Amino acid sequence: MARTRDHAPSQRATIHQAAARAHYDQDILYPLIDAAIIGTVAIVQDGQPIAIPMAIARLEDHIYLHGSRTSRLMQHLAAGHELCISLTHLDGLVVARSGMHCSANYRSAVVHGRGQVVEDEVEKAQRLHDIVEALIPGSRGDFREHLPKELKATTLIAVSLAEAACKIRTGEPNDDKDDLDLPYWAGVIPIERQYGEPIPAADLSTAVATPAYALHYPQRA
Amino acid sequence: MARTRDHAPSQRATIHQAAARAHYDQDILYPLIDAAIIGTVAIVQDGQPIAIPMAIARLEDHIYLHGSRTSRLMQHLAAGHELCISLTHLDGLVVARSGMHCSANYRSAVVHGRGQVVEDEVEKAQRLHDIVEALIPGSRGDFREHLPKELKATTLIAVSLAEAACKIRTGEPNDDKDDLDLPYWAGVIPIERQYGEPIPAADLSTAVATPAYALHYPQRA
Repeated sequence: MARTRDHAPSQRATIHQAAARAHYDQDILYPLIDAAIIGTVAIVQDGQPIAIPMAIARLEDHIYLHGSRTSRLMQHLAAGHELCISLTHLDGLVVARSGMHCSANYRSAVVHGRGQVVEDEVEKAQRLHDIVEALIPGSRGDFREHLPKELKATTLIAVSLAEAACKIRTGEPNDDKDDLDLPYWAGVIPIERQYGEPIPAADLSTAVATPAYALHYPQRA
Repeated sequence: MARTRDHAPSQRATIHQAAARAHYDQDILYPLIDAAIIGTVAIVQDGQPIAIPMAIARLEDHIYLHGSRTSRLMQHLAAGHELCISLTHLDGLVVARSGMHCSANYRSAVVHGRGQVVEDEVEKAQRLHDIVEALIPGSRGDFREHLPKELKATTLIAVSLAEAACKIRTGEPNDDKDDLDLPYWAGVIPIERQYGEPIPAADLSTAVATPAYALHYPQRA
């Protein structure tokens, strides 16, 4: 996916509905992924669609998915079948004078591709640390090293971001002109994600202070 | 789906991975859906998985999806093809002493089924009002009536909740016993959704006060 582009990278990644809200730029896609923690991964199994929430992390030009080697989903992804990853940030409820014009403000992304297994053990260990750092920025070094059995039990999958699309709605309700003077409220109820005070584990030694990365988890919508 | 049950309603709705976190009760599923505003709808098109975010609302024992009659997705759903709806509430980041035990607290649901078009115009108009009320509780009556052309342009789909599963993680990190005395922090960074002060539309008459439903939008995680 190009840093900036004004057209879809493929047929299936083309947004037709409300096409004015479509974006195909890396510069828009990557921050959207980086602000997400969970995405929904869709696959086709026995001809049926399956959609499962998973932790997602972007490292360079790929989204990484990880999970147990024994999971059916990870085995399916590891086999290189087609997948689709969708993520959404909900930014507000849009209330119009008519129910039909009620809407939501959101930033969403859809990625089409196939998984590629990270086989190299050194790369895999490194990427898994990088994923934790991507999801919990500033935490690097505050964990013990991976154990060989953990690495063996984990499947790590990279999905290229070459084929993706974003859709974004912002701003005001789009009421019909005829409705503007009706005595009904219209506007936006903003929504944001809030990160609370970190809660230390019950079995944490009192000698371990709460680190800055937990106290100041960066706002991610 | 039964009000309470301890087993999956079908083979494909059975959770194998971390099965202790699985729930198949209506009493758990319905509040999870009601707390959601957006779900991810997965379909199979030309053999490929497609996952698209959509507004979801539960009315009785169905999730309702609505959209433009001209949209390819709505046409696919209206044709009765298999679909899968997934939704996730992210409640916290779980930080362990090892990267591999880092996790997330979440409440998720996955629904398998097929769409059924609501054809009856009276029922459709009523359901569309009910959907707005489900998404913006207390707003009923603060909208003009649907126009015939709006109803005609909208496809409304009901999906039975008979085949669904929930997966929930709560609480502390699950560190290895050997790691408990390591000098690394462990705990939970809580996450919640926050609803801001309503922003009236720029073209709203000053005679229209902000209604209670917007000022006190009920907390939905």
